[in-house]
Amino acid sequence: MTIKDIADACGVSVSTVSRVLNKHPDVSHAVRERVMEAVKTLHYVPNNGARDLVRSSSDAVGVVVRGMGNLFFSDIIKTISSELDGCGLTMVLRYLDSDGDEVEAGALLQREKKLRGLIFLGGRFDYTPEEMHRVSVPYVCCSYTNRFGTLDEGDYASVYIDDFETAARAVETLISLGHRRIAALVPSRGDRSISELRYKGYCDALRWNGIDVDETLVEETGGCFDMPMTYEGACRLIERSRDFTALFALSDTTAMAAVKALEDHGLRVPEDVSVIAIDGLNVSEYMVPTLTTMVQPAEEMGRECVRILREQLSGGGTCHREVTACLRSGGSIRRIS
Amino acid sequence: MTIKDIADACGVSVSTVSRVLNKHPDVSHAVRERVMEAVKTLHYVPNNGARDLVRSSSDAVGVVVRGMGNLFFSDIIKTISSELDGCGLTMVLRYLDSDGDEVEAGALLQREKKLRGLIFLGGRFDYTPEEMHRVSVPYVCCSYTNRFGTLDEGDYASVYIDDFETAARAVETLISLGHRRIAALVPSRGDRSISELRYKGYCDALRWNGIDVDETLVEETGGCFDMPMTYEGACRLIERSRDFTALFALSDTTAMAAVKALEDHGLRVPEDVSVIAIDGLNVSEYMVPTLTTMVQPAEEMGRECVRILREQLSGGGTCHREVTACLRSGGSIRRIS
Repeated sequence: MTIKDIADACGVSVSTVSRVLNKHPDVSHAVRERVMEAVKTLHYVPNNGARDLVRSSSDAVGVVVRGMGNLFFSDIIKTISSELDGCGLTMVLRYLDSDGDEVEAGALLQREKKLRGLIFLGGRFDYTPEEMHRVSVPYVCCSYTNRFGTLDEGDYASVYIDDFETAARAVETLISLGHRRIAALVPSRGDRSISELRYKGYCDALRWNGIDVDETLVEETGGCFDMPMTYEGACRLIERSRDFTALFALSDTTAMAAVKALEDHGLRVPEDVSVIAIDGLNVSEYMVPTLTTMVQPAEEMGRECVRILREQLSGGGTCHREVTACLRSGGSIRRIS
Repeated sequence: MTIKDIADACGVSVSTVSRVLNKHPDVSHAVRERVMEAVKTLHYVPNNGARDLVRSSSDAVGVVVRGMGNLFFSDIIKTISSELDGCGLTMVLRYLDSDGDEVEAGALLQREKKLRGLIFLGGRFDYTPEEMHRVSVPYVCCSYTNRFGTLDEGDYASVYIDDFETAARAVETLISLGHRRIAALVPSRGDRSISELRYKGYCDALRWNGIDVDETLVEETGGCFDMPMTYEGACRLIERSRDFTALFALSDTTAMAAVKALEDHGLRVPEDVSVIAIDGLNVSEYMVPTLTTMVQPAEEMGRECVRILREQLSGGGTCHREVTACLRSGGSIRRIS
């Protein structure tokens, strides 16, 4: 009993049967049913050995990390590493600066290491099909989507939090405690990336609550959550205007640098300024005061990256998995009214 | 002109010539000179292509990281990753818990991935030749030596700081500011590892300055610099005895957890307690106050690991490279007399 017997029995081509068996999405429901019925009736056992042999030309999965200083990625990498290990795959890691070109790096890594798949940790939200054509293995974007790009949903996979909504929830937490003068530290307001989405969440949360966005309370730090650049940006903000009671930081390390800048200017957290962030790093739990932050589920995200990639490697389709960030209460915010 | 012609000209075996060309250490100086002279006179060009062909069966270098929560290793890993990349090698990373068996993991990884070499980040100081026999590729221990073990110096390579001396310098920094009641938070006093050496540095620095070691000021936290365990250990110490003006933390994350525990007990740093550590993480620069710590040169250590491993891979001998930790002054210590 071979795959050809099944094809003959169903009146379809061998490649169609193969697509069904490998769970490719581009097969009609009716054909899929017909093939699976024949597989069952004829007691066909797929030759997994042969399939594995073809596939095992390499067991390497590339992980391209953009933003070397991003501690949040360290947690995800640990999970990805052990998940890949657990299924016999090898993680090949490449670090890039925050202004590095992850698609170029991924394409290069794919050629050099004969990768089976790629996981991008950190990247732009505006890929085009032309650009991603360079990557010919399945890949998962973590933690971002292609919100500003033109990729077809079926052409890539992603694991992400809703950056806009998470930021809005953080800012609304501050508003619910009576804050109306809320500053923001953002790498960039319009980079069509994580920072733009979170900044939009900040702006909209203010507007929903009848608060105008005051441009003097927003400071662009540049970089990508780098602590020295954030610290300098926070100093510029404080020296320009002390007229805020709370600060929204786009990441935990941003918050750590901001708290340092505030304290260096004689402003106490949370007595003078409440600070809230997004990430949930272990180290920020040991800040004095403990940082209040929206925790991204790093382990779940790492596990999902590998699960989704493996599904694609065994012929399944792509998938977009949204996970939820949860508020971790700390001592860095306080009620002011 | 082949390697056999050289061997005949020198009256030695082909394997001896091979050992000389591959820079193996077990060849006498006289023979080495004779062979190199013949190579020169006869204009022999080693067939690197063939040699590379044999060697390129794998370009994988394993990096086994013991202590997943150790942020210091994150910095080293980034350097190792780009250094290996730069010379066409592939990093295969494996994370272990702090009580994991790195030799077992290394031996397994070597088999699974056909490694060319291994770098151990974190490990015990007491390997035996029998135990390390399982690892048959060159390896570098970072950042530790085999101080308590029985390995021959020529059988392994290492990159390390002098843990004893670095700890002593940290404690003497506190003593020079008038502190005599100096507490210590150590994972273990007698684990024949990094913690035992640093603890010994603490004890000896006290004794050199005429201060007895007071056991009630030393708390064992268990684990391996894990923040939750350190925090709990610090709380036990503080609740047992507040009779200290300074605290020596074996690592930056230990210090972060300790500062948190002190503040949670109403003790301010440095007003009530001065805190000094060893590591020099980027994040500890943004603590409030900035942590005073002995900075291990992470980049240099990562670079040296790869350099030394590559030397071995091209037939060179092992090497033990001590690097120096430098004091980074912060705001976490103060003069009390």
